[in-house]
Amino acid sequence: MAMVCLSDFEAYAKKYLPKIAWDYFAAGADDCTTRDENILAYKRIRFQPRMLRDVSVMDIRTKILGSEISFPVGIAPTGFHQLAWPDGEKSTARAARAMNTCYIASTYSTCTLEEISAAAPGGLRWFQLYIHRNRAASQQLVQRAEALGFRGLVLTTDVPYTGKRRDDVRNGFRLPPHMKVKNLEQAFEVCKMSLLDPSVTWNDIYWLRSLTRLPIIIKGILTREDAELAVRHGVQGIIVSNHGGRQLDEGPATIDALVEVVEAVQGRVEVYVDGGIRKGSDVLKALALGAKCVFIGRPALWGLAYKGGEGLQDVLRILQDEFRLSMALAGCARVSEVGQHLVQFSKL
Amino acid sequence: MAMVCLSDFEAYAKKYLPKIAWDYFAAGADDCTTRDENILAYKRIRFQPRMLRDVSVMDIRTKILGSEISFPVGIAPTGFHQLAWPDGEKSTARAARAMNTCYIASTYSTCTLEEISAAAPGGLRWFQLYIHRNRAASQQLVQRAEALGFRGLVLTTDVPYTGKRRDDVRNGFRLPPHMKVKNLEQAFEVCKMSLLDPSVTWNDIYWLRSLTRLPIIIKGILTREDAELAVRHGVQGIIVSNHGGRQLDEGPATIDALVEVVEAVQGRVEVYVDGGIRKGSDVLKALALGAKCVFIGRPALWGLAYKGGEGLQDVLRILQDEFRLSMALAGCARVSEVGQHLVQFSKL
Amino acid sequence: MAMVCLSDFEAYAKKYLPKIAWDYFAAGADDCTTRDENILAYKRIRFQPRMLRDVSVMDIRTKILGSEISFPVGIAPTGFHQLAWPDGEKSTARAARAMNTCYIASTYSTCTLEEISAAAPGGLRWFQLYIHRNRAASQQLVQRAEALGFRGLVLTTDVPYTGKRRDDVRNGFRLPPHMKVKNLEQAFEVCKMSLLDPSVTWNDIYWLRSLTRLPIIIKGILTREDAELAVRHGVQGIIVSNHGGRQLDEGPATIDALVEVVEAVQGRVEVYVDGGIRKGSDVLKALALGAKCVFIGRPALWGLAYKGGEGLQDVLRILQDEFRLSMALAGCARVSEVGQHLVQFSKL
Amino acid sequence: MAMVCLSDFEAYAKKYLPKIAWDYFAAGADDCTTRDENILAYKRIRFQPRMLRDVSVMDIRTKILGSEISFPVGIAPTGFHQLAWPDGEKSTARAARAMNTCYIASTYSTCTLEEISAAAPGGLRWFQLYIHRNRAASQQLVQRAEALGFRGLVLTTDVPYTGKRRDDVRNGFRLPPHMKVKNLEQAFEVCKMSLLDPSVTWNDIYWLRSLTRLPIIIKGILTREDAELAVRHGVQGIIVSNHGGRQLDEGPATIDALVEVVEAVQGRVEVYVDGGIRKGSDVLKALALGAKCVFIGRPALWGLAYKGGEGLQDVLRILQDEFRLSMALAGCARVSEVGQHLVQFSKL
Repeated sequence: MAMVCLSDFEAYAKKYLPKIAWDYFAAGADDCTTRDENILAYKRIRFQPRMLRDVSVMDIRTKILGSEISFPVGIAPTGFHQLAWPDGEKSTARAARAMNTCYIASTYSTCTLEEISAAAPGGLRWFQLYIHRNRAASQQLVQRAEALGFRGLVLTTDVPYTGKRRDDVRNGFRLPPHMKVKNLEQAFEVCKMSLLDPSVTWNDIYWLRSLTRLPIIIKGILTREDAELAVRHGVQGIIVSNHGGRQLDEGPATIDALVEVVEAVQGRVEVYVDGGIRKGSDVLKALALGAKCVFIGRPALWGLAYKGGEGLQDVLRILQDEFRLSMALAGCARVSEVGQHLVQFSKL
Repeated sequence: MAMVCLSDFEAYAKKYLPKIAWDYFAAGADDCTTRDENILAYKRIRFQPRMLRDVSVMDIRTKILGSEISFPVGIAPTGFHQLAWPDGEKSTARAARAMNTCYIASTYSTCTLEEISAAAPGGLRWFQLYIHRNRAASQQLVQRAEALGFRGLVLTTDVPYTGKRRDDVRNGFRLPPHMKVKNLEQAFEVCKMSLLDPSVTWNDIYWLRSLTRLPIIIKGILTREDAELAVRHGVQGIIVSNHGGRQLDEGPATIDALVEVVEAVQGRVEVYVDGGIRKGSDVLKALALGAKCVFIGRPALWGLAYKGGEGLQDVLRILQDEFRLSMALAGCARVSEVGQHLVQFSKL
Repeated sequence: MAMVCLSDFEAYAKKYLPKIAWDYFAAGADDCTTRDENILAYKRIRFQPRMLRDVSVMDIRTKILGSEISFPVGIAPTGFHQLAWPDGEKSTARAARAMNTCYIASTYSTCTLEEISAAAPGGLRWFQLYIHRNRAASQQLVQRAEALGFRGLVLTTDVPYTGKRRDDVRNGFRLPPHMKVKNLEQAFEVCKMSLLDPSVTWNDIYWLRSLTRLPIIIKGILTREDAELAVRHGVQGIIVSNHGGRQLDEGPATIDALVEVVEAVQGRVEVYVDGGIRKGSDVLKALALGAKCVFIGRPALWGLAYKGGEGLQDVLRILQDEFRLSMALAGCARVSEVGQHLVQFSKL
Repeated sequence: MAMVCLSDFEAYAKKYLPKIAWDYFAAGADDCTTRDENILAYKRIRFQPRMLRDVSVMDIRTKILGSEISFPVGIAPTGFHQLAWPDGEKSTARAARAMNTCYIASTYSTCTLEEISAAAPGGLRWFQLYIHRNRAASQQLVQRAEALGFRGLVLTTDVPYTGKRRDDVRNGFRLPPHMKVKNLEQAFEVCKMSLLDPSVTWNDIYWLRSLTRLPIIIKGILTREDAELAVRHGVQGIIVSNHGGRQLDEGPATIDALVEVVEAVQGRVEVYVDGGIRKGSDVLKALALGAKCVFIGRPALWGLAYKGGEGLQDVLRILQDEFRLSMALAGCARVSEVGQHLVQFSKL
């Protein structure tokens, strides 16, 4: 079977992963409307391609928070990579480094931050954080990440409580006994999300700031009001995200929310987006609408499920080729030429 | 089979109820467009969730006409509960009281008002009334309800004649011989809707007012004009309803009509809505658009069909949990924080 | 099998008519888009029903060009009724008279005008005319119709050439040898539509006017410009029609075109509509948008196919009951109370 | 099997062509969204037909760049006609001449320009050009075409690189060994699109102009900006095209882009359109929106696959008959009467 586009990896993962793992990765909240809308919303955006530009020399590199990446696609934070591939996040880290892009390691990794770092020394990595009731545990994680050379701290804001994912409830999803949320082993038991702190507010950004010199990127913002608050509280970046449709169902598709956030932010901080990216042309659309970079979640897991780090590299390479081709066919030779003039929202 | 969401109860009821009963409960008028639109219209409303609010202490209680309920979901008036469960409305009354919410008992109950009252003393109940050609019969019902401690009188306005429900016509639907519309036994024969008075007008509100000190809630309003008339005629509440799509097909979905009614009423009376509620997030949407509380019809019957009062409690508990979670994920800790800023209508 | 709504008759006809006859009646031009749009367009119109009106005494009679009919639904001109029932148009005429409504007999009838008249003396009938290259033949038809007591002359304008109906081409459709277009037997051979005159223009209205004192109703108008021309050329009525989607595919649905025509006409002549009427509530929508009366085409043929004149009466009776009920549920007791306030176009 | 409409030829070709050839002709880029949108967009355009015009004498001829054609449908440039029929482009040329219309021969023909010319001397033909890295090869092609009596030069602008057509990748598509891109045999190896020059810009129009006195038609324009640039660089015609959806997926449907281009061009040069034409009424819509003529791609190949040149004539004849009928039913007797008043965009 030729692996030609990301759907091929999805089909593979659905076929070969244990059902309970596939269901966990695929799950959306409630009716999965937002999970699916993330994808559908991209299809409502139309290109307005320009012809007869010199696209003989393509340059698709970009920078995020000052670090160069080979193209504007990073790995979004997702949990439990060992469910997809035995080596888990170590493979993810290696693939991201090989492709010269950014990997956001999740708090809910099945490898420790130390193992991840050791697997791919020098790779560009950010660390994704939940704030726990036990603030000391969170503080310790932040400081471990900083010490290990992670270059950004991503605060997830949309999980005061876990969303209702029906299939996980039906399956009674829990990690197999031989896997562990290793970063938190001492701190608390696996999968007890109830240890997350639902009382977190904007003021806790100041607390985080006091713990670390790392740039803080806030993840889960969907409105202009929260974008404005994020800027005012001094974050360095915003990831427009609805947690892959796994938290509040029937919020906006992320690509739609991106427009609102970019407009509010007015370039004061970098804005990224995740959710629904399935083709290189989706990346181009996100950039045209103001994202500095996108992050992929489920497709990265499909890549791992296919062949570990090698499979993830395949996924990234396909996206890279498709993105480069889309840019060229739209008439852009460099990322800096991509702008809002390239797209319009279909009225249908 | 795990009962995870309301559709599970629907599937159960469809499988285990006699076809004629299922068809009766499921029926919509004509092409069932409005019945289905009630649900689809909710899907066109998108949340605009806010992050980093303190949602550690959730309070989802509210008050309707001064009475506190544990969360803003009551039981809409539907007929013939014995078709779903042997104990009929007695089970409904018990479940509503156990969950500390409001139950609107239908004129077309298969238990008497006295039986319903005795089954769950002290429960918050309203009585739903049709005005009959024989006004004395209606007067007697109102006064029985008031004497039994019902705390509101719900006048249904959308049944001058019964809607055309094709399946009921095909099935020749009628109550089985061992069931009776007990409240009306002396007054007239079961299922003869033709005894309803199609000459009722707004002036009859004054007549009703003269019979009772109970607050009057008018049910079936779908336009700003009728909302204004209702307020002017001195009602205490309005239930925006299209009778579950069982009367005039191809009128508005109730959640769409709610917006118009709330705007017309301007807070002068409480506004409620029924029809199409299937998830806790639907409740949140209705509240964001100005409803004080919603009422569920068919889902309550599915609950009864599953396990009587216990099954209905399961349904209510699921809605309660989903509602609380939706509120938290949208960034609201109290019902009073829910407002129109939380939602927008999708243009698609 | 209970015949509950018009779709039941459609299913019956599809099952029992010879395929070639079913295909001929069902046919639309090209992709059948307009044929289907005629129906879908009704579904995009929403009622805004009013409550607590006195609808105890319903009066659904109306008048068209001064003649009273029992409800605002007549029989549109369609050809070849013997394909549906042995007695053909004689049965149609009897059913229309029994239901006290108007029957527009087609030039392409399989009974003569004389047979039609004799079958139901005193019935309200209009005669539908195509103008032929041989003007004498058309003149003779007009004068026969007038002499036989037909009370209106309906000029079809949308057939300069016959539309392309793919199934008829594939089937090689032609009348069976024992049927004849009897009105035209001397004049020309059956099914040679090429004898119709594609050079007809607005000036020919004056010619028609010179032949007869009958009111002239013009059928096939879809634009405000042509509506204005029709009024200026002195017609008495306009039937908004796209020939059931059998001529130019992808023109407007008739209920959509009705709005434009009614606005242009400003009450100077009566406006009717055909195409897509399948329920009593469709009739109510057409009236709310300004039609004085609607005409049904295919549903009348399904009724004939079911049980001849009796079947057609069944169809008309169902529409009548549904129309009366819709009116009552919308809050109208008389046709004169039906107005544009009752409906709105869905934005979806 | 009767060949009644173009879909019949499509079904035939799908059934009888080798899968790899069918897939190649059918292929669209990525998700094939644009390929399918080209067709769907036509369905969103509604006619506003006028009645009672004299359409007894129909004249559907038109002129493109001064040459008369029998009706406004030409043959778009597509490659590899021998995949559809042994005689390849020779059959295409004969059919086009027989039907008195214009054939745009592709650079990627499987016959030489000389063979094409010899097959149908005197036929109206344009030559489609890609600019190669080896400019001398392109120059030689242009000059051969001009010498052979081709009357226009069509520069394709949307292939700096080949689009990603998943099926072709899966099939490992390449020409069978016995077929050759004969025009280029000396210059480079077959299917090495990488020999196309992605550095081509608007200035190369001046270079082309210096090579030939043929009118230059630019193909692949989709925006008002590029249309303006094309006019300013002195082209004689614009073909609005997205390469049948085979290059950048999710750009505009061509019929939608046509409106924008026509508005920008303001009649300064002729505008044509290809993509999605499946019925005569599609041609009428394109003309109503300002196209001087349309070109068909895949339908021509289906015609070839059916019966070579004869099959292609069948396809053209069906389109011609349908176009003439549509014009008449819309109330136009001559192409010059077709205008924007005939159509409106559906809001749905």
